[in-house]
Amino acid sequence: MHGDHIAAWLHDVRSRNLLLPIWYEGGAIRIIDQRELPHHKVIVRIDHVNDLISSIQNMAIRGSGALGLCGAWGVFLAANEFAGRVEAVLAAARSLREARPTAFNLHRTVDELVPLVTNAEDTMEDLESQVLEIVERQLSYEYKLAEEGAKLLHEGDSILTHCHSGALAGAGYGGRVISVLRRAVETGKKIHVFVSETRPYLQGARITAWELGKLGIPYTVITDGTSGYCMQQRLVNLVLVGSDRVAANGDVANKIGTYTHAVLAAAHHVPFYVATSEHTIDLSLATGTQIPIEMRPMEEIMHLGERLLTPPDATALYPAFDITPAGLIAGIITEKGVLKPPYEASVAAQFGRHYGCEGSEQER
Amino acid sequence: MHGDHIAAWLHDVRSRNLLLPIWYEGGAIRIIDQRELPHHKVIVRIDHVNDLISSIQNMAIRGSGALGLCGAWGVFLAANEFAGRVEAVLAAARSLREARPTAFNLHRTVDELVPLVTNAEDTMEDLESQVLEIVERQLSYEYKLAEEGAKLLHEGDSILTHCHSGALAGAGYGGRVISVLRRAVETGKKIHVFVSETRPYLQGARITAWELGKLGIPYTVITDGTSGYCMQQRLVNLVLVGSDRVAANGDVANKIGTYTHAVLAAAHHVPFYVATSEHTIDLSLATGTQIPIEMRPMEEIMHLGERLLTPPDATALYPAFDITPAGLIAGIITEKGVLKPPYEASVAAQFGRHYGCEGSEQER
Repeated sequence: MHGDHIAAWLHDVRSRNLLLPIWYEGGAIRIIDQRELPHHKVIVRIDHVNDLISSIQNMAIRGSGALGLCGAWGVFLAANEFAGRVEAVLAAARSLREARPTAFNLHRTVDELVPLVTNAEDTMEDLESQVLEIVERQLSYEYKLAEEGAKLLHEGDSILTHCHSGALAGAGYGGRVISVLRRAVETGKKIHVFVSETRPYLQGARITAWELGKLGIPYTVITDGTSGYCMQQRLVNLVLVGSDRVAANGDVANKIGTYTHAVLAAAHHVPFYVATSEHTIDLSLATGTQIPIEMRPMEEIMHLGERLLTPPDATALYPAFDITPAGLIAGIITEKGVLKPPYEASVAAQFGRHYGCEGSEQER
Repeated sequence: MHGDHIAAWLHDVRSRNLLLPIWYEGGAIRIIDQRELPHHKVIVRIDHVNDLISSIQNMAIRGSGALGLCGAWGVFLAANEFAGRVEAVLAAARSLREARPTAFNLHRTVDELVPLVTNAEDTMEDLESQVLEIVERQLSYEYKLAEEGAKLLHEGDSILTHCHSGALAGAGYGGRVISVLRRAVETGKKIHVFVSETRPYLQGARITAWELGKLGIPYTVITDGTSGYCMQQRLVNLVLVGSDRVAANGDVANKIGTYTHAVLAAAHHVPFYVATSEHTIDLSLATGTQIPIEMRPMEEIMHLGERLLTPPDATALYPAFDITPAGLIAGIITEKGVLKPPYEASVAAQFGRHYGCEGSEQER
């Protein structure tokens, strides 16, 4: 009977101290509603693929790795929901795929599973196995990236990070950045993390802080403008951030505020590292200036939740991302190893095929 | 009858387009409650000097210039309230003076007026004249500083500022920073201002934005971490901030986040100016490392109003100020002219006497 593999996998996963952003249990999808963090860990039961699509659209679940898992579990849920009605499953898969138009990982996992839906010879057991393979593959990327990155950290390091690149945005081990921090601690290194709160959405203060707390990794939250003070006072000796997209020359797009930390790091001779997946490396972009910067509504700067912070007739500017030039980056940690400057050469050597528009996922 | 001078002065002031943080009208002090900005301009009537002390302590009124005016109007109110009872007036003056222990301007104006209270020959009319002289003297500093600073701004300049150094923190024209911006506009220069929101208290987003809006000066609010982006994109060509204290070598203490902007400005060859009063220059401090940095409770980072932003068991770090080394500063604008590097020489030449602990006012 299908479902047995999942039950066995779930049992196994629970012994591995993961923080899954999404899983399947008791005939339904479960997600952790990221909007409720850090105050409440709300697990939402999702019985219908349309409700998963809504949860993606309203940001209850976000992050490129997590969205990849949404694609896999979503197709599986649709196949159960519309058992035997192939056209209905495919229509649901298409809607799921479009839930976030730039979420490359979501598109990729949906596309990987659609053939199993259409091929009459493939069973639900086959689909189930393939979903679990996708989940474990994504987890294996995090383990590998963590192993590579942890080698760069040393006993006593004090690491500044920005925004959130952790388990809930990834596959469950720790995304990109928190995987590295976690692995360093697991291999016996004592570290401390400074968490830049990351206005306006406060992903650092809310989610990174919460995940680090759950892992027992000591951390200190600071406002985004305090990183200069921390470096001047030598409270921080390394910066580690995630990335939404990397150009062929090593320029990196990440959450707004990243470039500010990078310039400060350079001025204080603090090494600045990026942890990212192979899938964010976009060889079609020669430099970071070609990476489009999403400009978000200024109301998101002006409000915190329902609360208006500025005069009602204020003007605000909210670029969601900024570009950190390769020259400020000491290394780019991937699941295939750590890329070092000059990046044109190291990127091409490691990932020398054309990725087209891959990695266009831009996380809030 | 005493009060006539004040009525005439008030009439005159109203024609000068000032934004007084505190004044005297109809037998009582009036203050603008800064905590209610930008949403409500609440004018609070204060009949008793004890209520003024409470308003200072609960931050309804703040800012070094405004606190200087509190000292003047507070002694005047006490002299009215306790008419003829010299000991009661002096006790009230002592309490007023201690309302904020590091508020140098508050201490100075109280100390200036106390002799008029104790000297039997001095009348209420004499006290009234002296209070108005203090108010006009503080305003004259703003006019002079504005005139000096405005010369540094050019048509089309786009200026980044941080925190709030405006009329409500000063004497009513525009404090230190907004006076300069205002004067530039009054002398026909078109400028644009980028306002760094200034977490955690958001003085930029709330009060600087509000004052600029009232003056019709176009502005754009950004998060503190966005200044790097703005400089990289050449949206900003000058930085202008206030200061809480200046050391003899030109090192400057100002609101946390200022140093971050200063490092970014240097990296982008954007001139970084400080506008400050003579009274913040403390020749007893050789360098900025001697300026004590107030560490505030971490709860103030963790909360916005009543709202908890971080996990409840988070740790946070909140230095209220940071030190910008003189080497990053293109000029220090004062009411006595613009100091240029090397500051040891220019500070000593202009202010070559020993200021002791003057200028210890640290504004929130």
